Amino acid sequence: MKFCSECGSAALEFRIPDGDTMARRVCTTCGAIHYQNPKVVVGCLPLWDEKVLLCKRAIEPRFGLWTLPAGFLENGETIFAAAARETLEEARARVEVGPLYTMISLPHISQVYVMFRARMLDLDFGAGPESLEVRLFAEDEIPWTEIAFRTITRTLRNFFLDRKLGAFPTRVSALERRVPREPALAGAG
Amino acid sequence: MKFCSECGSAALEFRIPDGDTMARRVCTTCGAIHYQNPKVVVGCLPLWDEKVLLCKRAIEPRFGLWTLPAGFLENGETIFAAAARETLEEARARVEVGPLYTMISLPHISQVYVMFRARMLDLDFGAGPESLEVRLFAEDEIPWTEIAFRTITRTLRNFFLDRKLGAFPTRVSALERRVPREPALAGAG
Repeated sequence: MKFCSECGSAALEFRIPDGDTMARRVCTTCGAIHYQNPKVVVGCLPLWDEKVLLCKRAIEPRFGLWTLPAGFLENGETIFAAAARETLEEARARVEVGPLYTMISLPHISQVYVMFRARMLDLDFGAGPESLEVRLFAEDEIPWTEIAFRTITRTLRNFFLDRKLGAFPTRVSALERRVPREPALAGAG
Repeated sequence: MKFCSECGSAALEFRIPDGDTMARRVCTTCGAIHYQNPKVVVGCLPLWDEKVLLCKRAIEPRFGLWTLPAGFLENGETIFAAAARETLEEARARVEVGPLYTMISLPHISQVYVMFRARMLDLDFGAGPESLEVRLFAEDEIPWTEIAFRTITRTLRNFFLDRKLGAFPTRVSALERRVPREPALAGAG
């Protein structure tokens, strides 16, 4: 933000407003306080028999890597509707959105991931404009070293573990800023 | 938004950008697309023995009505940290944040409520600057007709029901725009 969206002034400062506890962009011309808040990314884990539907990204970031269908929650939308919409847009797949499965805070990029389990209604799927390819994967086919985001790796790893255990509790967690890892551990979590 | 926050121009239009599916504010001077997304409200249900801690609001909206401690998730913050921070700010209470309990979409105001169960660590609580009064309530003392928000009524009603049933599954739901109700039903949901 370089200009005040209320009055157009460039006289913005970054300070803690009276009565607040966090620094905000404040317009010194009109007094408007500009709040910024985290975004919610909603998606699902579409299942057909024992297989999971993944999308190969056709956009940055992480072009060419695999992900579950997910995207930003829009104004005016429920989280259920967002999960179904993203799955239709990215994987051209129709799902019945099931129980909430993982919710993962990413404070360093101010995002919260919300992932549902979902049942595919048919096998009529394909690449939407943001995907290069969409495919069903059995557990032993998952391209673990080519997964686009740590939230997706965590959701998939939890899922295959919970499936062995026979229960899918809602799993709430956080991922902090990535620390450099040994190459041998890449893709491990 | 009346001016572009990137270039200060007032030449904004509301249209669907190329490749997008929803209308956004687009600057016709510099081309910036201004996205707006739902906000996350995080809070908790602080428990001491059989009682729940409620706050009487000292601010609008719903001045003078009772609520659970909750507020907007901030950039850079996990949902656990936000739940604890809001409880400290509004009720001056220290809690151990427990399992995720309710998650409620409010599409008509583009918010998502995320409420955790929480255990109060001590009885040293009191009104923060946004509260008139903070009090522990047993189930039969809850001021049902003076609860500030439907998300809070739903969370409290679910809680007392689930406590009788002996289990607290994560409950994900949505509340649409309020429809006028019979006065006799006010506070019922």
